[in-house]
Amino acid sequence: MMTVLRSVAAQTRPRVLPTAGPEISSCWFTSSPRNASTITFGERAQKEQKEEAAAVGGGGAAAGGGKGKEVASYWGVPPSKLTKEDGSEWKWNCFRPWETYQADLSIDLKKHHVPKTFLDKFAYWTVKSLRLPTDIFFQRRYGCRAMMLETVAAVPGMVGGMLLHCKSLRRFEPSGGWIKALLEEAENERMHLMTFMEVAKPKWYERALVFAVQGVFFNAYFVAYLASPKLAHRITGYLEEEAIHSYTEFLKELDKGNIENVKAPAIAIDYWRLPANSTLRDVVMVVRADEAHHRDVNHFASDIHYQGLELKDSPAPIGYH
Amino acid sequence: MMTVLRSVAAQTRPRVLPTAGPEISSCWFTSSPRNASTITFGERAQKEQKEEAAAVGGGGAAAGGGKGKEVASYWGVPPSKLTKEDGSEWKWNCFRPWETYQADLSIDLKKHHVPKTFLDKFAYWTVKSLRLPTDIFFQRRYGCRAMMLETVAAVPGMVGGMLLHCKSLRRFEPSGGWIKALLEEAENERMHLMTFMEVAKPKWYERALVFAVQGVFFNAYFVAYLASPKLAHRITGYLEEEAIHSYTEFLKELDKGNIENVKAPAIAIDYWRLPANSTLRDVVMVVRADEAHHRDVNHFASDIHYQGLELKDSPAPIGYH
Ligand SMILES: [Fe+2]
Ligand SMILES: [Fe+2]
Ligand SMILES: [Fe+2]
Ligand SMILES: [Fe+2]
Repeated sequence: MMTVLRSVAAQTRPRVLPTAGPEISSCWFTSSPRNASTITFGERAQKEQKEEAAAVGGGGAAAGGGKGKEVASYWGVPPSKLTKEDGSEWKWNCFRPWETYQADLSIDLKKHHVPKTFLDKFAYWTVKSLRLPTDIFFQRRYGCRAMMLETVAAVPGMVGGMLLHCKSLRRFEPSGGWIKALLEEAENERMHLMTFMEVAKPKWYERALVFAVQGVFFNAYFVAYLASPKLAHRITGYLEEEAIHSYTEFLKELDKGNIENVKAPAIAIDYWRLPANSTLRDVVMVVRADEAHHRDVNHFASDIHYQGLELKDSPAPIGYH
Repeated sequence: MMTVLRSVAAQTRPRVLPTAGPEISSCWFTSSPRNASTITFGERAQKEQKEEAAAVGGGGAAAGGGKGKEVASYWGVPPSKLTKEDGSEWKWNCFRPWETYQADLSIDLKKHHVPKTFLDKFAYWTVKSLRLPTDIFFQRRYGCRAMMLETVAAVPGMVGGMLLHCKSLRRFEPSGGWIKALLEEAENERMHLMTFMEVAKPKWYERALVFAVQGVFFNAYFVAYLASPKLAHRITGYLEEEAIHSYTEFLKELDKGNIENVKAPAIAIDYWRLPANSTLRDVVMVVRADEAHHRDVNHFASDIHYQGLELKDSPAPIGYH
């Protein structure tokens, strides 16, 4: 029962081949590595490397993110070197070309899980009660709000994925792909943060707040997931519903001109495969579509538990963006 | 500075396109879903779905892992449906075609980090002291030993990846790809477990032991990583050196005929792209190569810290198998 592709672009991998290999990149060698004596390389390999190091004069900063610092490596571990479709170097270390996608903007933004059971209502009102302080704190500064909320949004997927990973190991049983699906969600949320960081710079007290909030939320969600994955996924589902609302307000402010519709950051253009002339509005549109997908996945995960099954009993929606 | 490919096969993605899309797979509908009333679908979408559900008679078990149980979904979340190169259905939910690879068996198995600093020696002797009870417990039952050790081996990558993820969020800074690299390692170890599970079935007291060991090791490694990632990665590096040794012993027992060289499990053949007639020996060979790669990555990560840098300052070896 294969499904027909409605949106091929959203699912197909880009036809870009990584050009990294077990070959050692010469720019990873410095002239005076501190750990030189720790390796028992074969004579020949060692000689080859020395020649390579000599060829680049032992200099050259580690490419990307190295900020001019050098890392000596005799472990033969190469950095991932990739090229884009147009042959230019792939400049992002935090995501790879085959993780990029085109967001499915046709997703229904209005879907809502009407809380019926006590657990659902508890999840619903927990999320609703968190919204009031958030509204008061941020008011209409939606750029800032988005950035701060993404630091929280990236937690549930990581906690869920990690706990399912440990469970799979403990019980000697497969995961049905759910570890990956939840970790993908966490990574997707982190990419939202990396994107909004380019647009809004956090102030020192906001950084401090994130520190505190993460500490509390991570542990609370951890305990909630251990106690009841059903509840935890429902809470995340409702959080995502709020995120959709929040981004819709963001769009309204952009359209009113209260927030400047600046150029989209380069990272967003590459991650969501946006046209080169995209703006912040386009970015908020694709991020909102992502949140709608997360809402679906989490309410669905909660539904699976409601039906007395475990997540692994139902194949995970991997690559559902 | 692009590197030349020495082993293309180990790095290129398979040319298989996922056939999953946002299209709703009809086998996800049942005739009496418990959560039917919880969604406010648009009229048309609902009608469409009912027709689809009717078309399959409301029956059909959820494909793969469903064991005949059904999961109702009104969230439009499709399971990932993939095809293999030969057009047959991809049967694994726990890994996708583009995560498979051919192990680089040419990797140097003898590399060793000679402990020099106090921290290194502490890491080295911690690992060495853990080996004695392991040797006593398992003796020469290497199949069992491999399986049990993989449940532990999959912990460090997950803990490290999770902590780096949280750090990236807290500090509003990119990860240099290390979150992914460490999570990939964790997933790779879990695949080792999934493979050995097919060959050796754990007994009840072994399951109980895993439970206890995971609880202790996860927390100990968590604390160690928070206190000193330098130490934590060094410990993992030495654990991997022990793993290489352990698999070498495994191979010796296989060659002596003390352990039967059975057919390789189907999951291993698909994951490492092994020939169809591969045996357990071939599997142990590729697993051992994996451990050598983990050793490199972790000693390298520790080296980065030794040089006063953070992991994010040096691009991660993503896809280094
Ligand atoms: Fe988000
Ligand atoms: Fe989200
Ligand atoms: Fe392993
Ligand atoms: Fe390993």
